Order: sequence, then structure tokens, then C-alpha cells
Amino acid sequence: MRLAKLLLSACLVPALAFADDAALETAAALRAQALADDTAWNVVESLTTEVGPRLAGSEADARAVAWAQAKFEELGYDRVWIEPVTFPKWERRSESAQVLGVNAQPLLVTALGGSPGGTVEAGIVRFDSLDALKAAPAGSLEGKIAFVDYRMERARDGSGYSHGSAVRGRGPSEAIRKGAVGFLMRSAGTSAHRVANTGITRFDEGLSPVPSAALSLPDADQLARLLAQGPVRVRISLDCGWDGEYTSHNVIGEITGREAPQEVVLLGAHLDSWDLGTGAIDDASGIGITMAAGHLVRQLPQRPRRSIRVVAFANEEQGLLGGREYARRHATDVARHVIAVESDFGAGRIYGFNTSGGESGAVARIAGALAPLGIAQMPGKGGPGPDISPLAAIGGAWAWLGQDGSRYFDLHHNADDTLDKIDPADLAQNAAAYAVFAWLAAESGADFGSKAKAPAAD
Amino acid sequence: MRLAKLLLSACLVPALAFADDAALETAAALRAQALADDTAWNVVESLTTEVGPRLAGSEADARAVAWAQAKFEELGYDRVWIEPVTFPKWERRSESAQVLGVNAQPLLVTALGGSPGGTVEAGIVRFDSLDALKAAPAGSLEGKIAFVDYRMERARDGSGYSHGSAVRGRGPSEAIRKGAVGFLMRSAGTSAHRVANTGITRFDEGLSPVPSAALSLPDADQLARLLAQGPVRVRISLDCGWDGEYTSHNVIGEITGREAPQEVVLLGAHLDSWDLGTGAIDDASGIGITMAAGHLVRQLPQRPRRSIRVVAFANEEQGLLGGREYARRHATDVARHVIAVESDFGAGRIYGFNTSGGESGAVARIAGALAPLGIAQMPGKGGPGPDISPLAAIGGAWAWLGQDGSRYFDLHHNADDTLDKIDPADLAQNAAAYAVFAWLAAESGADFGSKAKAPAAD
Repeated sequence: MRLAKLLLSACLVPALAFADDAALETAAALRAQALADDTAWNVVESLTTEVGPRLAGSEADARAVAWAQAKFEELGYDRVWIEPVTFPKWERRSESAQVLGVNAQPLLVTALGGSPGGTVEAGIVRFDSLDALKAAPAGSLEGKIAFVDYRMERARDGSGYSHGSAVRGRGPSEAIRKGAVGFLMRSAGTSAHRVANTGITRFDEGLSPVPSAALSLPDADQLARLLAQGPVRVRISLDCGWDGEYTSHNVIGEITGREAPQEVVLLGAHLDSWDLGTGAIDDASGIGITMAAGHLVRQLPQRPRRSIRVVAFANEEQGLLGGREYARRHATDVARHVIAVESDFGAGRIYGFNTSGGESGAVARIAGALAPLGIAQMPGKGGPGPDISPLAAIGGAWAWLGQDGSRYFDLHHNADDTLDKIDPADLAQNAAAYAVFAWLAAESGADFGSKAKAPAAD
Repeated sequence: MRLAKLLLSACLVPALAFADDAALETAAALRAQALADDTAWNVVESLTTEVGPRLAGSEADARAVAWAQAKFEELGYDRVWIEPVTFPKWERRSESAQVLGVNAQPLLVTALGGSPGGTVEAGIVRFDSLDALKAAPAGSLEGKIAFVDYRMERARDGSGYSHGSAVRGRGPSEAIRKGAVGFLMRSAGTSAHRVANTGITRFDEGLSPVPSAALSLPDADQLARLLAQGPVRVRISLDCGWDGEYTSHNVIGEITGREAPQEVVLLGAHLDSWDLGTGAIDDASGIGITMAAGHLVRQLPQRPRRSIRVVAFANEEQGLLGGREYARRHATDVARHVIAVESDFGAGRIYGFNTSGGESGAVARIAGALAPLGIAQMPGKGGPGPDISPLAAIGGAWAWLGQDGSRYFDLHHNADDTLDKIDPADLAQNAAAYAVFAWLAAESGADFGSKAKAPAAD
């Protein structure tokens, strides 16, 4: 079926087919070269080692921006620039929790991003799920700490996270509505180690925020076992909170297209990280993969027809702030962003490819060039990465290069997100896929379907 | 050869052989029952959950002593008593470290037990090994922090720990001799996670102790990468130290022998733990295995000939204080301790068995009864467990039930030492081995070689 379409397309546009053949030959060479190349690894090592954790708004945020500009220059990008992104700054200073009384012992917690500071001592009321918390009678948590003990499932596509992140995002507000003075949750993660998972939460308007934190999985187990024996009182002490505004930057490197430089194939990842690890798989790996992909195409004898733009987005973690600002700033240029793809799901091997639409022949040609990397075309699967979703919402076409996320939530948003957890061969496979995709999308004249539209009302 | 000896022994003492047959039948029944029994698991769960971390001298030390007395009573031990053990008290209050300057970032550390508190800021000098530190010129670390980056090997028998623990025990003093103001080491452990391994260190007399801490393995990697790029300054802030004396207790439960109650088969483990985890594999598992073994023998229709004494030793972690005190207090009774064995190497399956000597027929009969558990007799292997080593040093016979320690140093002395890391089936295999051993050694009249002697001069 795919072959038939390819043959049909070859018959109808023989001149283009010759060009395509050359482009596919280049893609094959690029693929082989990328698999043997360590640029992505070197970029990830450099960012995670020299900058380390880079919480949006922290001193390290500015160092990361300077690092990214220098790295784009070093990698030979034709144009490098920054675009400001302003957001409220949240800081974490210290955090602790203890079981009180006859079973006194510490519990390993981490504050949820956006939590206020404060110390609360109260009895614990445990819920299996967010729905169970929602079903609690009004006022039933008066003076209590709510504990949502939802167990997130491990899955290749990360599907378990939708429930886990809902507990984190909506749990605190639900608890406050029932009268709770504090909020604890089993981390939205899959690690069996003593690492707790942070991540942004939000408090609904009109509610008074309460200290909100996540327990490591062993600590959640421990608290559940103690609760099975009888009432448990816990003290949570958080020193953290919002403190003014900060202006960071999206950092952008571009390989300028030789024929249609105004048409852009966008590769994205985010530069910020949470502060507990060094942000290796979230998202230095994405920065490494996309910077390396552009660099590899840049090494070819000639630039592709269109431009390749790599965007290192600011502050993804606290609400896609860099991605939203990019879409706002470039709203009138949506159609010129011919297609966008983001790497923000770790460093596991890519197994699937899909796009939001576009000329099926062009998409199939890219899929064919990705297939030797073990990547299958998967119609109907995936979606735009977080930072390109605001662009997609106003009509930008997207591609999805789906990574194996089976281990992603062992590391995501916790202290174990460090360089040693990345397999260099898996990382190179990712860089190869992004290089092949970027090259073929930028060398092609295909329409992938980008067309300015009003964002949906939701 | 072993069979020949068995037949010979059967020919020479036919009456004893009949008694042995009955004892071996009972051992087989005990083995099967123990494999299906969850007493060891329940004991480990109870201690790690209800008491949690129980640093020697802490408030939880007293709770652990009370817990152990109550648990022996609950498990039907005939006699339960305590023996005081007094030692200096060391406390950990807080600990942190940071890289300073252009690569500013936190490093995950934990203070070594016995470290003084204090804050030092200094340049780092890295060494591959303790020997490399020893070889540094006198005065060469003046005003510096020594960093010993020795990588411990993983091994079934835990043999990698001898070097790792030497770095911890002797590294600080060696560093001080060269002028160092602080000491850092790659944790003496094998975990790839963000957990650092504590453990006792000692400062040689005449030296002024300096803040001494261990880095998690990812943090040691990070520091080594930064040092490969150029000089690195680090701040270490420890709030910890010695504070007076404390009196804890060895807690002892005994199954009183029916014929020779003054003869004792001793099963040991230690009740204290480090404070970072809940002391699950170090050494609640040993407490669970030995308490369950005695309990299982207690369930038999009649007591064994000799007594089985289970000792939950106080403060093993800071220098075998409970074991030393036990040997001191019972020094005149060495010969009545017919054999002693200790479980203090986690909860991995037992694969090997050996004794310090004794009648070979009796030892072979025990080995034969352990064989169905996958345990091989291994002449020349093993040694006395830490807390029974002072007893062994004055002539007490010992047995070794060697556990698979391949994963032990992933958890030992760090925050990951929690209940969820124990496999209940492996734990039951351990309890079965201890029950079989205790029963056969206590039911037998064999001489295992205990004989009072003066301790070696070293």
C-alpha cells in the first residue's frame, strides 16, 4: 500500500522523485553518521554537569541560557538568538516531614512546585485515588492532612502519568475544599527508591493554598502501613514559595535554508529542569538530541531547502511558559512553521512516528527513512510535545517521534534524573531519528498542513 | 567421603544414629514449615514500620529495645531479658554540600558516623584510592578537601566492601595527616541512585577531626567530571557529632533446652540501624530470621536438648558495642556457648554453610539438612558474624550461613534500606536455614569446638 503510493507519486512527479531519491540517499548517510556520533551525549553531559539543576527563575536558569547560546554557536548554527519569557518565580529552600508519636520517624517528601511554605501538624486521612478524595463529604478533612495514595502504572507510552499528574495538579485544591490543612501524595512516579517526585501544582482561585508535598514510594508504603494500624499524625515543614517575577529566554539556533529560509522545520526541547536531579532525561536529553540533529544536518555539503530551527524553551516545567510565549510571539507565522516536533520524554529509544497530517507521500518517505532505526509509522498515535502544543493549537503541524517511556517515570522530576541513567546508544538513535526527520522535512517541499487558525475555546 | 564418614558414625554409635534419624526427620518437617511461614516477614515489617530507623542512642533505640522484648514474649520464648550496653552517643541533625562558583550546584552527601559538625569551603583534591591518598606528600592537602573516589566492586560475598569500608574508616585520618580540612568519599556502596552511604569512621588519636561525608555514586561521578574540567571548590556543612553517653540493651530471648539448658546455641542479629533508611536489610532481616527460627523450633512438640538463645545486639553499627559487651559479660561461659551464628548480611538467599570446626559428622549432618534449601557445605569459607566475633575471639565456635550479597551494598547504610527491598520467599529460605541449623545443633550432643581462650593480641 505504502509502496503503491510511492510508485504513484514517482510516476506523477518524476522530477521531484529524482530529488527525493537524492534526499533519501542523504538521509541514509545522515542516519549512519548520527548513530556513530556522540554530539548528543556531549551536549547532555555538558549541560547536566556544568549547569546542573536549572530551576526556572533560579541563578542557574541564567547560566543555562548563556550555555545554550554558546553551545549553538559552537555547533555551527547559522543564527542564534534569544526571546524573553517572563513568569512568576517559585523557590524551594527546605522540606521535611515526620510521623509523630509512638512511631516517630522521618518521611522523605518533596514540595510540589507552587506549594506555599509552612508547617502543619495534623492527622492523616488516606484516599486511594483522586476520585475518592473528591467523594469525601464536605468539611470531612477539617484540620486534617489529605493523603492520596494513588499507584501510578508503568507503561511504554507513559499513559499512567495522566492519572498521576491529575492527583498532583488537582489534589491540593480538592483537599482544601474539604477543609484540609495540608496535602500529601504518593509520588506520580514508578521508582522503588527513596526519591520523591516534584512537579507543578495549582490552587484554584479563591482557595487558600496549603503545604503540599509528595512522598517517595517506599515512604508512601510506610505511611499506608502505619495507617492500617491506627491513626497517624504527621508534621510537614516546607520552606518554599513564589517570589516575584523573572525573565528568562527561549534560546534559538537556526540552520538557514538554502531556498526557502522563511519556511521553518522546528525541533524543540526545554532548557529548564526541576531542581532535584540534574535534569538529564528531563530534558537535557531533548536538548542534546535536537541540537545534535541540527548540527548533523549542518555538516552536510549544502543546507536543506528550508530552515531548521532548534528551540530550547524556557520554563516548560511550571506551565509551558516558553512554549506559550513562542506561539504568541510567532502567531502570525504559523503557516511558515511547516512542521514542529519536540523531544521531551527522556532518552529511551524511539519506536513510533506520526504526524498531524500532511501529504501522505512525504510522510511515508520520512517513515521509510526512519524504519531502519526500528521506528514504525503509527497513524493515530502520539501528539505534539508540550512546548509545541501552543503552536499546534493555533494551526501548526506537528510530528511525533515516540520514545519508549517504560523507565521515564523512574527518573522524571526526582533526584535520580542524572546523566548516568542515559544509555549513549539509545541517545544516538534518537539523534539519528531527529536528524533524518529534520533533513527530509526541510529538504522537501511538502505541505504538512500548517495553517493559522483560532485556538479552541477550551 | 562424607557418606563414608556418616556410615562409619552410624556403625560406631547405632543408638545415637537412631536419635539422629529422628532429629533429621524433625529437621525436614521444620524446613518445610519454615518455607511456608511468614513469621520472619512479620517481624521485619513490624520493626521497620513501627520503630523505623533506630540509630544507637536515639529515642528510637529505646523503642526498639521495648519492641524486641515484647516480640520475644509474643513469639513464645521461654525467657526474655535485657543486658545493658553503654556507649558514646552520636547524632545527625543536618547535612549538605554544594559546588561553588560558575558550576554552582548541590551535591548529595551524608555525614560519616563519628564525623564532627562544621562548615568548610575549600578546593577539592581527588584520589582514586586510599593508597593514592596515603602517597600524597605531607602538607599537600593543606586547606583542601580530600575526595577519595574509590569504586567498590559488586560481589556475591561482599568482598568489595573491605576496600570500600577501609576508605571510610581510615580515609579521614589519612587526609588530616596531609593537612586536609574536610573529607569526601564516593559511597562504599553499589547503588546507582541518589542515596549516600553512611557508616562509622574513626579519627586516630592526636588528630583534630574534620567534617567527613560520603557522596552518592551519581554525585561522585558529577564531582569527578567537574574536576576533569578544572579546579572545583565545595562547601560541606554538617550538623552532627558526639553528645554524651547512652545506655541501650542487648535483648535476649531463649528457648530453654530440655536436657542441657546451660548449653547454648546462639543465633544473633543486631537491633540498631543507621538512620537513613529503616534498617530493613541491616538488620531487621537478621532479627526476623533469628526470632522466627527460635519461634519455629519452639512450636515443636518438645524443646531441643540444648537451649537456643537469640540475641538482638545493641549498637553494632558504631563498633560492635553490643557484641563486645556480650562477650565481656559471658566470658566465663564461652565453652557453654556450643556454637554461635549471626545473620547480618541482608535478606538474600543463603548459598553456603561452614563452621569453625567441631565434630565433622555433626557438621555434615547439618549440612545435609540444609542442602535441600540450595545451601552447599563450603569448608574454608566464611567467618563469624560481626557481633559474635568478640565471642569467637575468646574461643567460641561459630557457624556461617552465607547469604547472597550481590544486592546488599545497593541498600546497606543508605536511605534505600527499606522493607520493600526484601523478597519474602528469600527471607523464608533464610529462616528455614536458621531453624534447621538451630534445631540440629541444639538437639545434638556434638562438640563444635568452643573452648575458652585468651583473645589474640591484635
